[in-house]
Amino acid sequence: MTEAATGRRTRGGGGAARRAERTAISLETAKYIERNIPNFEVLTEEALEIIEANAETVLAEIGVNFVNNPAALDRWRAAGAEVEGERVRIPRGLARQLCSTAPAQYTQHARNPARNVVVGGKNLVLAPVYGPPFVHDAEKGRRYATIEDFRNFVKLGYMSKWLHHSGGTVCEPTDVPVNKRHLDMLHAHMTLSDKPFMGSVTEPSRAQDSVDMCEILFGKQFVQDNTVMTSLININSPMTFDDTMMGALEIYAANNQACVISPFIVGGAMAPVSVAGTLTQVLAEVLAGIAYSQLVRAGAPVIFGAFVTSIDMNSGAPTFGTPEASLITYGAGQLARRMGLPYRSAGSFCGSKLPDAQAAYETSNSLNMGLLSGVNFMLHACGWLEGGLVSSYEKFVMDADQLGALHHLAKGVQIDENAQAMDAIAEVGPGGHYLGCAHTQANFKTAFWRSDLFDYKPFETWSEEGARDTMALATQRVKRQLDTYQKPPLDPAIAEALEAFVAQKKASVPDAFL
Amino acid sequence: MTEAATGRRTRGGGGAARRAERTAISLETAKYIERNIPNFEVLTEEALEIIEANAETVLAEIGVNFVNNPAALDRWRAAGAEVEGERVRIPRGLARQLCSTAPAQYTQHARNPARNVVVGGKNLVLAPVYGPPFVHDAEKGRRYATIEDFRNFVKLGYMSKWLHHSGGTVCEPTDVPVNKRHLDMLHAHMTLSDKPFMGSVTEPSRAQDSVDMCEILFGKQFVQDNTVMTSLININSPMTFDDTMMGALEIYAANNQACVISPFIVGGAMAPVSVAGTLTQVLAEVLAGIAYSQLVRAGAPVIFGAFVTSIDMNSGAPTFGTPEASLITYGAGQLARRMGLPYRSAGSFCGSKLPDAQAAYETSNSLNMGLLSGVNFMLHACGWLEGGLVSSYEKFVMDADQLGALHHLAKGVQIDENAQAMDAIAEVGPGGHYLGCAHTQANFKTAFWRSDLFDYKPFETWSEEGARDTMALATQRVKRQLDTYQKPPLDPAIAEALEAFVAQKKASVPDAFL
Repeated sequence: MTEAATGRRTRGGGGAARRAERTAISLETAKYIERNIPNFEVLTEEALEIIEANAETVLAEIGVNFVNNPAALDRWRAAGAEVEGERVRIPRGLARQLCSTAPAQYTQHARNPARNVVVGGKNLVLAPVYGPPFVHDAEKGRRYATIEDFRNFVKLGYMSKWLHHSGGTVCEPTDVPVNKRHLDMLHAHMTLSDKPFMGSVTEPSRAQDSVDMCEILFGKQFVQDNTVMTSLININSPMTFDDTMMGALEIYAANNQACVISPFIVGGAMAPVSVAGTLTQVLAEVLAGIAYSQLVRAGAPVIFGAFVTSIDMNSGAPTFGTPEASLITYGAGQLARRMGLPYRSAGSFCGSKLPDAQAAYETSNSLNMGLLSGVNFMLHACGWLEGGLVSSYEKFVMDADQLGALHHLAKGVQIDENAQAMDAIAEVGPGGHYLGCAHTQANFKTAFWRSDLFDYKPFETWSEEGARDTMALATQRVKRQLDTYQKPPLDPAIAEALEAFVAQKKASVPDAFL
Repeated sequence: MTEAATGRRTRGGGGAARRAERTAISLETAKYIERNIPNFEVLTEEALEIIEANAETVLAEIGVNFVNNPAALDRWRAAGAEVEGERVRIPRGLARQLCSTAPAQYTQHARNPARNVVVGGKNLVLAPVYGPPFVHDAEKGRRYATIEDFRNFVKLGYMSKWLHHSGGTVCEPTDVPVNKRHLDMLHAHMTLSDKPFMGSVTEPSRAQDSVDMCEILFGKQFVQDNTVMTSLININSPMTFDDTMMGALEIYAANNQACVISPFIVGGAMAPVSVAGTLTQVLAEVLAGIAYSQLVRAGAPVIFGAFVTSIDMNSGAPTFGTPEASLITYGAGQLARRMGLPYRSAGSFCGSKLPDAQAAYETSNSLNMGLLSGVNFMLHACGWLEGGLVSSYEKFVMDADQLGALHHLAKGVQIDENAQAMDAIAEVGPGGHYLGCAHTQANFKTAFWRSDLFDYKPFETWSEEGARDTMALATQRVKRQLDTYQKPPLDPAIAEALEAFVAQKKASVPDAFL
């Protein structure tokens, strides 16, 4: 299931880079999950057909808005849609037909080829939390995130055995000007980790900067021939595609870089309060968004996204890890598979203000549901706190540890002769015990998943050691990881070129904080 | 989904009882879960057949031990098994054939008929933690459990909306003599709650006392005609059936009372370290145990049980909420359904010493797996802490709250016209919001599950109110529930008769503390 990250691509740079590589510590990262278990499906064939027909009705009769984007309206008109103002009505069947050129799976390359991920099929790729303006830790509490925090989370992600992807905006570095943040964020992913990462989507020009930096890191030709970024394009639900996000999508699709096309839904506010109604809207939005990506460039890699939560009707707060969100996520997985597309949903979702029991219940509900619903790309797989307002240091390592359990659950049940263990049952017999038997000795090292974080000690030992809760254990683990972090080696010529690009870009425009 | 508990059976007692009933507060308890979602299955047909064939091999060639129980050996001999010393070898197919007289489902009656539960089919009945010698709360910490604690947990179970069953040994009342505890425990279940409960299994005579007390509570004829207890018979895995547990089973089966027949397995110690090997042993043990129950009385109601956890190979500690335990639980559900028997597994399992994040991750893994694996009777559904050594006050109400989420998840997806919400999507349109639309107004009250415990407030409000974590919220909830608890009404004549029985039994033998 796991593989040491040993093979590394060298590109230019020569002897110094190769020497750096030889002396670096080898960090173990599990391969992305390849499921050997079925998907859990809650929709009947009849329900699927009703939802699919209703989504076509929504597109044909209600339509979607492409805001501030005349070029998009031209593309839609040329493709046969009815355009009226910014409203695009898509004849039945057209969106689905356009979606058919999107690939069923794609490889996202990392600068360390051992970290490449295949998104789609039976695979599950895990990426960390995305977007919070705040961070939280036990020592300093809740505060605005800085670029130092950002770098720390990239380091923690790099060191996590069960995280396959470095993610994108692991937190918002609010101390860096808004129009320059993306440069520092990409630089951090490219230099502090060797796992795959996401590009900027906050402006089309920043998406272009992301592509340009990738050309420095991977080489121009390599980027033209391969997918090296998966970026997050949110739809403004209900049914609104804004020019910023679409502008970034256009850049990425044109460059054959992958995008998650993702409705952003708080059920009851941005979608109906019913599961079937929400699924209808999700499908309509994804059909329109992915069809548009294929109008920009047929064959561009995309992911069927569904960020779904529900609202607490008492307070108006979004709630997480709820059964309704689970049902929607299970159902959306079925819809995505029927389109033959990779699927993104779920994550370490919770509404709690602390990484406490509430956070863990909610998160565990969502992580398990994510695995079983057939998610292929799970953003927010660790570190999410307080409805996504906060990246939590402690929760990052707690969740990342739990991701190990998903890897083992996904292995399913082996049934070969060794797994049948009939010799062991005969050897031990009624009233015996298995601890010392030959089968146990031969298999115990890989038999059971074991948390690297939780406390398994007897009560007395645990008490003597300070009666620490999970939060305290996680604080210790964060410190140990950041203290022992070592940068993965990078060709010095590439490192210099990246520095120069960032410096030149930053110098070319004044700071903007809005 | 829910129903107010209004109808109550009156038996004898007359006017005083009826007046008491009319003035009592009506407490809402959800009906047992009737699943409208599929089961999650991890074993292929081929794997199921291999495991079933291997289990027959285990029974025929290795056999099981019935310890200290000549009558059992006689029964087996008469049924066609090969008996050698205490070893019983069961010819292929015999055990499965004997199991075929066990019912696929049964009704366990409560003294309040609105609380009756149907165990089997697509139903899930939730019962609280069973067996811990210690209790824990935030204020007084960890300590030996007393009868006062026991009564408190019965009260909390009675007040929980999502708990259908009062359970059995919700904690061990260690301040009551071992040979008299069962009387006080049964008395508490019978008088402090009106939900169904479990009988004593620690001695055949105590099982008989349980039957006798039920005859007082329900009437002699009613107990002869109906099942009023579901009791827990553990198998000493591997493959050992001791005379205490079998003695209790014999009493219950002879009286047509239900038993869970349950291997007690810490994988790696009492079963092989592999999933398939453990499932083989579980099936062999359950086949032998249930076959034996049917030898005692054909048609006696029984449940296919599987208590499964794995061992931490570093420390030897049992671990909970692990992926291997989940795979075994999913697989055992398939085996139980192929036998056409109700299935017991899962629970609020965790190894943590505190109701912290570790406890919640582990518990949530197990609760979700329990629902999806098709469990019909979930013992330990709330309150379990520290590997079952501790009944936790706070965790009891935390877990009990999460059980609400299981109820809503089990509802599955509605697909009627209202659920499709096409009018709402048309009314709101691109860029609108759903909060005020007609569909939301008509459906919001029942649309989403909402925790009664978790914090959904904005950060600022939460901070001002003391920045409480889940533990603090749970402490408050425990206090509020115990403060507002009101005894369900009981016919005074029955109450007096129960008191008299307990007093007489206690006076008839000296105290024993071992």
